[in-house]
Amino acid sequence: MASKQKTNANPRDVPAVVVSRLSLYLRELQHLVRAGRATVSSSQLATLFGFTDAQVRKDLAYFGHFGHPGIGYRCAELIAEIRRILGTDRQWTVTMVGVGNMGRALLRYKGFAAQGFRVVAAFDRDPRIIGQHIEGVPVYDFSRLGEIVSGQEIQLGMITVPADEAQQVADQLVAAGIHGIVNFAPVSLSLPDGIGLVGVDLTTELEQLAFSVANRLGSR
Amino acid sequence: MASKQKTNANPRDVPAVVVSRLSLYLRELQHLVRAGRATVSSSQLATLFGFTDAQVRKDLAYFGHFGHPGIGYRCAELIAEIRRILGTDRQWTVTMVGVGNMGRALLRYKGFAAQGFRVVAAFDRDPRIIGQHIEGVPVYDFSRLGEIVSGQEIQLGMITVPADEAQQVADQLVAAGIHGIVNFAPVSLSLPDGIGLVGVDLTTELEQLAFSVANRLGSR
Repeated sequence: MASKQKTNANPRDVPAVVVSRLSLYLRELQHLVRAGRATVSSSQLATLFGFTDAQVRKDLAYFGHFGHPGIGYRCAELIAEIRRILGTDRQWTVTMVGVGNMGRALLRYKGFAAQGFRVVAAFDRDPRIIGQHIEGVPVYDFSRLGEIVSGQEIQLGMITVPADEAQQVADQLVAAGIHGIVNFAPVSLSLPDGIGLVGVDLTTELEQLAFSVANRLGSR
Repeated sequence: MASKQKTNANPRDVPAVVVSRLSLYLRELQHLVRAGRATVSSSQLATLFGFTDAQVRKDLAYFGHFGHPGIGYRCAELIAEIRRILGTDRQWTVTMVGVGNMGRALLRYKGFAAQGFRVVAAFDRDPRIIGQHIEGVPVYDFSRLGEIVSGQEIQLGMITVPADEAQQVADQLVAAGIHGIVNFAPVSLSLPDGIGLVGVDLTTELEQLAFSVANRLGSR
């Protein structure tokens, strides 16, 4: 641990794209550990992503010095450091608002829990779904959203309702004390300062791909 | 149309983040048209996203001059231009490989078809699913992937198989002549030059949110 410094950069100065690459590094390190690897070099990590090793070192240097001379990175140690940086070294409680096809698929997705995100409550308007448990997650009537989110101090919300309901849902989540929202509805949300927001528009991903294919930009 | 120029920038010079904002503009313009609006100013568009109007004008200027003095943008015209730029003024054929919870949710998602992406074939290994039609899309045995993708000249692929199968599926899609892949499996894919690739790791979205909330970065 001798070469490591805890003096992190101010997170406000870290480009979002660097933070998103931390997630990539984390996932690849977790694969390596499952495959029995104890250490990895920056150039080996870089090769896995088609980046340069300078890029990998620069990304990590925003947060400290994690390498060991002659060894490279210790996988388990770097995983712990990245989780600390991302804030996923703790458990986050999450609510899912909207239990249609997408909400249901997300509730069944195993990846969230593995990375520290625990969905503890879901909400829908459909009386056929209310009262069910999906993957152990209770589905409540939408009218109880404020009471349950604030009562359980749920931290993050995922919105999978139709576009024209998303802003209203977001406002209710914010009023109930949520700290951040992942919005899957294909509409822009307006949130107060201090509330985290990540938008996931799946059609946008296909459009980005179409642009690169139509213009023969190749892989990225 | 007098003020419009067709001399596009070289798409290789356009930052990916600008292309992703085109999708945002497109979606918002489509909402405006549905609400009966015929024109919009760059500052009105900017306000909807929390950008500056200079940002909106600069983004669009990569591709031409679309505004009309004293009018702003004509919504329907700008929609057509953005779809032309993105390459979604044509139909794209898409295959879905993996019909688990996520694949099924994506097959049922209405947004893709509305933007020009038509899923024409799905593949899975599960004999209980093979032969079914989901939202009109036939599910074939995985062993027929090469034959059907090349025979129907399917252009884009979405991969929703487990992480340890994703690279093999991608290799088979490439061999069958696919032009681009959206990868939902939480693993990095290695593809030949000239094949488009967009990765969607849903856990990454939550991690980005956790980082911003843990570091109180607010909305973005």
